[in-house]
This record gives sequence, C-alpha cells and structure tokens, in this order.
Amino acid sequence: MKTTNTKAFGTIAPDADLMQMDIERREITAHDVEIDILYCGVCHSDLHTARNDWGGTKYPAVPGHEIVGRVTAIGAEVTKFEIGDLAAIGCMVECACPNCKEEQYCESGFTATYNSHDAYLNQQTFGGYSEKIVAKESFVLKVPANLDLAAVAPLLCAGVTTWSPLRHWNVKKGSKVAVVGLGGLGHMAIKLAKGLGADVTLFSRTPGKTEDANKLGASNVVISTDKEQMKAVANTFDLIIDTVPYAHDVNPYITTLKTNSTLVLVGFLGELNPPLNTAPLVLGRKSIAGSLIGGIEETQEMLDFCGKHNIVSDIELIEMQDINVAYERMLKSDVKYRFVIDMNSLKK
Amino acid sequence: MKTTNTKAFGTIAPDADLMQMDIERREITAHDVEIDILYCGVCHSDLHTARNDWGGTKYPAVPGHEIVGRVTAIGAEVTKFEIGDLAAIGCMVECACPNCKEEQYCESGFTATYNSHDAYLNQQTFGGYSEKIVAKESFVLKVPANLDLAAVAPLLCAGVTTWSPLRHWNVKKGSKVAVVGLGGLGHMAIKLAKGLGADVTLFSRTPGKTEDANKLGASNVVISTDKEQMKAVANTFDLIIDTVPYAHDVNPYITTLKTNSTLVLVGFLGELNPPLNTAPLVLGRKSIAGSLIGGIEETQEMLDFCGKHNIVSDIELIEMQDINVAYERMLKSDVKYRFVIDMNSLKK
Repeated sequence: MKTTNTKAFGTIAPDADLMQMDIERREITAHDVEIDILYCGVCHSDLHTARNDWGGTKYPAVPGHEIVGRVTAIGAEVTKFEIGDLAAIGCMVECACPNCKEEQYCESGFTATYNSHDAYLNQQTFGGYSEKIVAKESFVLKVPANLDLAAVAPLLCAGVTTWSPLRHWNVKKGSKVAVVGLGGLGHMAIKLAKGLGADVTLFSRTPGKTEDANKLGASNVVISTDKEQMKAVANTFDLIIDTVPYAHDVNPYITTLKTNSTLVLVGFLGELNPPLNTAPLVLGRKSIAGSLIGGIEETQEMLDFCGKHNIVSDIELIEMQDINVAYERMLKSDVKYRFVIDMNSLKK
Repeated sequence: MKTTNTKAFGTIAPDADLMQMDIERREITAHDVEIDILYCGVCHSDLHTARNDWGGTKYPAVPGHEIVGRVTAIGAEVTKFEIGDLAAIGCMVECACPNCKEEQYCESGFTATYNSHDAYLNQQTFGGYSEKIVAKESFVLKVPANLDLAAVAPLLCAGVTTWSPLRHWNVKKGSKVAVVGLGGLGHMAIKLAKGLGADVTLFSRTPGKTEDANKLGASNVVISTDKEQMKAVANTFDLIIDTVPYAHDVNPYITTLKTNSTLVLVGFLGELNPPLNTAPLVLGRKSIAGSLIGGIEETQEMLDFCGKHNIVSDIELIEMQDINVAYERMLKSDVKYRFVIDMNSLKK
C-alpha cells in the first residue's frame, strides 16, 4: 500500500520526551478522507499512552484523539465530505465488524485512533499530533462552522465521553445531575448537562471552585468532605457523572442518588478502594455503572448539539513544541480545562 | 387501644433460643384485616434479627414475614377481603406516607412486619411466628386458591425479592438470566425467571447441583471457579440476580454480562471484598445495582403470576417447636430450599 511521509510529534520510550518525528500515512482508499489537522486536544490518555502507564504502548507512539481539521482529499466513494470541508476525528478510526452497531462496546474491538493495530499498514495507529490523518469517512465527523475550531477539539473525547452517559441515562430538562471532578471531562459534563436543561451540581473536595463552576453552568457546589453539605443533598440526583481518574471513595456520592438512579464512572478503570458498600444500592435500588467514550452517531449528535447551543471547551492553546511542559502541568491539574495544540506550530 | 393476647414464638435475647410467649395484637380498626396464620416461611432475616446480627433488635423479638392464612375478622371500611378469604402478608405492614408510591424505597421508611415501630401500640412489631396477625388491608395480599398454601409462604419474601428485579430490569421471553447462589432466594429466582420465559443459568461454586438446578428450570449450570467455563459465558447475560448473602467476589460475574446489562445484588448488604474492578463496567457500560424485597402491587402481581403458572417454593415443613434446630441447619444451607412452619403446631 502506498504511503506518504508525514511530520508528527511522538515518543520513542516511556521515559523519553515527545519530539518531532516522521510517520507514514496511507494514501487514501475509496472510502477514505484525508484531513489537514488544524487543532488537536490533549487528553490524559495521551500522557498515559506516551508513558506506557497502562502497558501495551508500542513505540514510536504518536498520541492525540481530539482532532479538528479540513478535508484535503477524498476517495472515489466518499459521499459525506468534499475537499475544503471542516472535519473531526475522535477516539476511533475503524471497526473490524462490517456493520458495527456496538461501536465503542464492540466485542471484536474497535481500532483506536492511536496505539491500536492499523490493518492497512500493519503497524500501530498514529494519532493527531501530526500534520495530517487519513481515515474511513464513516469514522469522520462533521464540524459546525459557527464554533471556535480550537475549542471544538476537546469535544471529540472529553465532550462525547460525558455526553454519552447523559444521553444514555436520559438527562433532560429538569433532571438533577451531579458531576464529580472539575477537569477536562468534568467541565464538559457541566456544560453539556446544563445545555440539556438539567440542574447541575458540582461535587468538589476543596472550596474555591464556586465561581468557576457557576460560570460553566452549575447552580450549586457541594464540598464532598463536608458531612452536613452531603447530608443536605441526600437522595437528590437522577444521575452522577464521576470523572475522577484515580481510585476514590464513591460511597458518599451513592447516598446522594435518588431511588432508581445511577452513578456512572467515566474516568477510572481499576479497583474501587475504599470498597463499595452495597447497602445504599440495595436499600435504594441504586446503581453504579461505567461508560466508555461515545459512538460515532452520538458524537455527531453532540457536535450538532454544541453547534446549536454554542458549547465548546474552555481551553489553553499551546504550540506542539510545548507538549512536554503541558503534560507536567496536566499532572498537577494546572489547566482550565484542556490544552489544545495549534498544529500550525508543527508545520513551521 | 384495645388489644388481644396472642400466642407467639420468639426470643428474649441474642443468645437465647426461641420459645413460646404471649404478645399483644391490636383489635382491628376500620381498615384492618385479622388473619389466622396457617403457615409462616423461615427467612435468613428472621435468624439475623433474632440474634441481633445487624444490631437494633428489640426484645422480645418475634420474627416471620412470609405469612399465609385466612381472614377471621375485617374492619368496617375493608373492601378487598371477606371473612374466610385466604390472605398473605410479606415484609411490610404499613407506611407513614398516606399515599406512598415508593413503598419499600420510601424515604420516610416503611413499617416492617417485625422489629419495626408499631405506631398503634407503641411497641416493636411482631411477625408471623404467631397464631394471628392484624394489618391494614392495603398491605394484605390475595392468595391464589389453586396453590399449595404452605409452599406459597416463601413467595412473600424470597419470591418477591427476586421477582422485583426480574420485572424492573424487564426480563421476558428469551432473556438470558443468570442466578448466583442456590438457596431460598436463588431457587425462586430460577423458577420465576423461567416462568417469565427466560433462559436461566445457575452459577455455582461447587459441582453436583446440575440435576437440582435443571429441575427448578435452569438450562445450564456454570461452575464459577472454573475459568474455562466462565470464559465460555463471557458477555452472555441480560441480567444476573446475585442472591449470595455474604461478601463475595462479584468481578468474575460482571464479565459475563452483555453490554448495557446489570448484576443486581439482593442478598448482601456490606462492603464488597474483594474490591469491585470498574474496568469491565466502563468498557462494557455494565452496571452493578441492588434491589430490596418488592412493593405491594408487584407482590400481588407475583402471586397472581405464580397462581397462573403453578409456581411455588420447594419447602420443608416443620413444627414451630423445631425452629431452633431449623436455624442451625439454615446456617449450614441444609435445606431445600425453605423451611416453612406449620402454625397449627403452635396452636396445639
């Protein structure tokens, strides 16, 4: 298969800094779209993959799955896009199933945008920290033209990861939604839940976030370490979106769910410690669930919704060459709320 | 308020045997039904309460909340029952809310059939290990006349506790349901799920239960400690009813749920150890939930369903005087599958 040499930014080892490198992209096939990347958001998963925190990273690794750009070439069979259109790519670029309806939950396993198996070139997939990307049009999203393109990028992962559970658990006008954690995912959860008409509460471990949370759309901030404040919101919420990416105590949050309601984890994969107490689950028919990114159809739905409601991420724009500093700041939660790379910086 | 002296069987201390005693029942008020108790099932909760395992037991304690009998008197406003009718009482006898729709999940808290606050007599409520009981007609159930009355008794707790999640999570013809644990609750879960048209699998830690499980209606038995057998049922079940009443490892079962499906705990209140791993929840949008007994309306629905489908509990009939031996055998799971007390033995 013919390939073209592409400038990218990646890493060759878990403990190495990211640096400029060349990768190969396939030339477009009949159903492919080639995208000139304008912006790429910086997700925690990028850092985990670059540093092999989860194991399984293949090097060189080129992260990035919050990709916004413009179509520069289309395959003969492409119908959804024309050259010059805005386009976006999120966490998935392919699925082995010919007509997959499960998408992110497909048992065959989808092809992730980076560090997955690229069946075309028999190598690992390379993400959006690069000049351009080629993908099947069915995995490419349309971008509403009225939005700030740099601030759209984080919608492709942080946005849809919180949108998907909000929709799956049927959040609507008047729903009472709580969000745990105010980072890239948490700030999008607040904006999207508010956009859907919900009354949104932020749970925070520390005071001082009220002003920011209110600006994002939360009507209330509850300090989760304050027993009185927690008691005051017992049996209150229809849905809790828990975005915390490390092991933490979910038990106090469970008590704030209404009967028949669900706390959904979108950020943490691992053992729940302290252990989950099942008593509030049984006594109130409550649930704890998980949710993974979002499907292609619901990603498009979310982008359209954001276009209509003027919702984008709050971002800090950086140059590609500043990514290593950005990773260190991200580890300290020192960003409001998502870094986005101006990919022009790579092309210089 | 006028009371009548009633023969009962109860205990005066956590470490005392149950013995015959007298209790007071209120005389019927306008909305009350008085029931001559024919049979009373023996639930694990009876034992836990008698021995104060959960704390909070008030003595003397008279357990029993799987009650079947015949109406002997009705209040002036009673419309559902006539003298001579069959009648049953389960886990609840009252709710403080005038028009409670939440029933077992009511935030005000329902009045349990025993060891709860009896607002009429300002004492603890006394359960079905007694000659008769008086309760508000809205908490009294009708019993299908075609069923073996002794074997109906366990439906009032073990039956509805498994029926409620089967219905709430919409089990129907063709659903794939798994049951964890083959005791009083587990054997009812198999019968009721099968009755609803589901394909039922029993998870067991030990071999040798296939014949019994098949007789009850399970089409398959999976040994949960056998990794190959567990792998063969990965992503299979629409619902898992987990009846195990002590801390146990739920993680292997979670992997056998389909995407979007739920494991529901009906037997265990406490900390999940080993800890719950959230990865399968997130990667498959799976849930772990709890469910508590059942509401009055769904208890009646379940009894009517059992009448129509000829479903009752498998029981071992005992005399009231044998209850202490029965408790010891129950602790060793030495019963197939529920003890039921022939209350005639108390009247002798």
